[in-house]
Amino acid sequence: MNGHCHAAMTLFRGLADDLSLADWLNNHIFPAEAKHVTPDMVYWCSKLAAAEMILSGTTTVADGYFHEHHAAKAFADVGLRAVAAQGVIDFPAPGVPDPQEKINHAAEFLSQWRDHPLVSPAVFAHSPYTCSPKTLVAAKELARSEKTLFFIHVAETEQEADMIQGNPGDSPVRHLHKLGVLDSETVCIHAIWLDEQDLDILAETGAAAVVCPQSNLKLASGTAPLRAMLARGIRVGIGTDGAASNNRLDLFREMDICAKLHKLRDLDPVAVPVAQIINMATGGGASVLGLQKKIGRLEEGKHADIILLNLDAPHLQPVHGSDLPVYAAQGSDVQTVLINGTPVMQNRKILSFDLNETLEQVRRLADQVKKCNFS
Amino acid sequence: MNGHCHAAMTLFRGLADDLSLADWLNNHIFPAEAKHVTPDMVYWCSKLAAAEMILSGTTTVADGYFHEHHAAKAFADVGLRAVAAQGVIDFPAPGVPDPQEKINHAAEFLSQWRDHPLVSPAVFAHSPYTCSPKTLVAAKELARSEKTLFFIHVAETEQEADMIQGNPGDSPVRHLHKLGVLDSETVCIHAIWLDEQDLDILAETGAAAVVCPQSNLKLASGTAPLRAMLARGIRVGIGTDGAASNNRLDLFREMDICAKLHKLRDLDPVAVPVAQIINMATGGGASVLGLQKKIGRLEEGKHADIILLNLDAPHLQPVHGSDLPVYAAQGSDVQTVLINGTPVMQNRKILSFDLNETLEQVRRLADQVKKCNFS
Repeated sequence: MNGHCHAAMTLFRGLADDLSLADWLNNHIFPAEAKHVTPDMVYWCSKLAAAEMILSGTTTVADGYFHEHHAAKAFADVGLRAVAAQGVIDFPAPGVPDPQEKINHAAEFLSQWRDHPLVSPAVFAHSPYTCSPKTLVAAKELARSEKTLFFIHVAETEQEADMIQGNPGDSPVRHLHKLGVLDSETVCIHAIWLDEQDLDILAETGAAAVVCPQSNLKLASGTAPLRAMLARGIRVGIGTDGAASNNRLDLFREMDICAKLHKLRDLDPVAVPVAQIINMATGGGASVLGLQKKIGRLEEGKHADIILLNLDAPHLQPVHGSDLPVYAAQGSDVQTVLINGTPVMQNRKILSFDLNETLEQVRRLADQVKKCNFS
Repeated sequence: MNGHCHAAMTLFRGLADDLSLADWLNNHIFPAEAKHVTPDMVYWCSKLAAAEMILSGTTTVADGYFHEHHAAKAFADVGLRAVAAQGVIDFPAPGVPDPQEKINHAAEFLSQWRDHPLVSPAVFAHSPYTCSPKTLVAAKELARSEKTLFFIHVAETEQEADMIQGNPGDSPVRHLHKLGVLDSETVCIHAIWLDEQDLDILAETGAAAVVCPQSNLKLASGTAPLRAMLARGIRVGIGTDGAASNNRLDLFREMDICAKLHKLRDLDPVAVPVAQIINMATGGGASVLGLQKKIGRLEEGKHADIILLNLDAPHLQPVHGSDLPVYAAQGSDVQTVLINGTPVMQNRKILSFDLNETLEQVRRLADQVKKCNFS
């Protein structure tokens, strides 16, 4: 379960490395998105992301972007299980040139995908610093009325609190709590800069969190208080974030780094045991996405989302113990992937769509990016 | 250039995860080594390590272990360039049951490998807390008289200073400096817990350092002051450490995590630019190992140690810019490896030895480990 992704951003992989979140977003990513994010781009670049995720053993992704209808179509065509969330933000965005229309646009998206067997629609409000209180409340109202999840980037940087239209001194979490948007159907992405009161609020409201350790490292945002969240019983998933800030969509890398990073954070080699990390990417992740009745465990009555690994690779040998070798495995050790009982990848070959066609389409789109200059 | 490895420890990959350095060493690794480290084990398990390194694009390894003659033989047979360092430690060790004989044993090793075209011999004193001042001085004297490198684990944990037989208050680096063992032929491994004076001493003496970010994360040891070392002009390489504390020998993972980790350490997304990280694994690493005249740059007069990557993998597409995509590539993207002009791996197949034979031999040895109980 990849708990957080912006799949279409594969187009921007490596385009603007080694920058702070503010510089990266305002001077590179938002301008590139304004120019290049079209339905065509979202479809093909989400399909490339789906290929990378399937090839590294991801069977479900929680995605959030603009033109999300076309991302959802890509996931459906490819056979990747998804929670696809339409982006909501207070400035003109791809597919929503008039910000007044953003809630109507999201509502239309929800109704289009309401009953799809693989793709569940949801709402993704970008953040408390790019959405006004009014927007946040309206987006959450919509999600509630449609019984869908509400995703939001929260407390990603130390500076975020100062950028919010709220009471001075309110943390991003307290701000959202006062607006009434935190409940068990809300998923807080990143959740790094939390104080004790923030942690209590998440625990009391039942809101879930998704940590994105590699993206947070690469943008120098910080490290989420994972151990404290788990100790309070907060449901926590793990995500890759988009390929422009990672730059990979491989949950095996994410699990490895997540486990090791928290050893460093606490200078404690057992800070977050591997079993908990694996749970965040499987059953626990399914619970964050409201899919725990369908998937997340290999047991009777669940849908057959199954991956098979080859443990004979030299870098995995010898194998001591019976746990998944989180510190040694990599996504490309996955040999076969079934989603909803259907083999979508077998012996490292994608079966469910034409990967070469996707690569060609993405190269065509990337050539257009290369002709522009965003620096 | 993998600047630090204990190749034969592939046998213990995943055997004792999620432990502190002291617990891991004293209660698991040292007992396992006493029982299982034989010439046979060192040869085959070093060969497995060589396979993993070649398959992930490493062309030179700096190794240090016991029975190092058999590790050197494995590297020579496989065609992997190596600096192979015989371990020196103050308690009975595999191959050196009488600690009185350790210097003689190391001297014998140096003379055996003095003129090999691929394998350069060296001395590896385990650490200032497992070697007495007398041992450290004698081992460095030997290295000096034979004009070889002297490796030593230094300042790996915060507690190390208290475990040294020196003047109270002396840091590990000051202790070594007072003993006269720091010079441009000394390589300090880990180099995490350094104060300003320690950094000055390394810069003044010309001693080099090798950082092992993943091992340091996994054992919760800390993070080396990489930026400060580079700013002082200290030569710094990058290494994987052994497979029991990583658990991989893939320099692509190491480069990615190293770059990201230092962004977090300083909360600065440009803390250590990618070009410097790549240099640590290429030309800069060659300089640390005293091989800068032979290798480390693609230019006339150097030996042909060359790797070719496949950039067409979905997780590398599209490619913006001309730098090595450190944040996206993984070792298995390496398609072909030449060492000293000889192809040792082509299209992901090892050409220079029989990998299946090695895997079978390592499984046989691993079965013996499984029959024991070290907990």
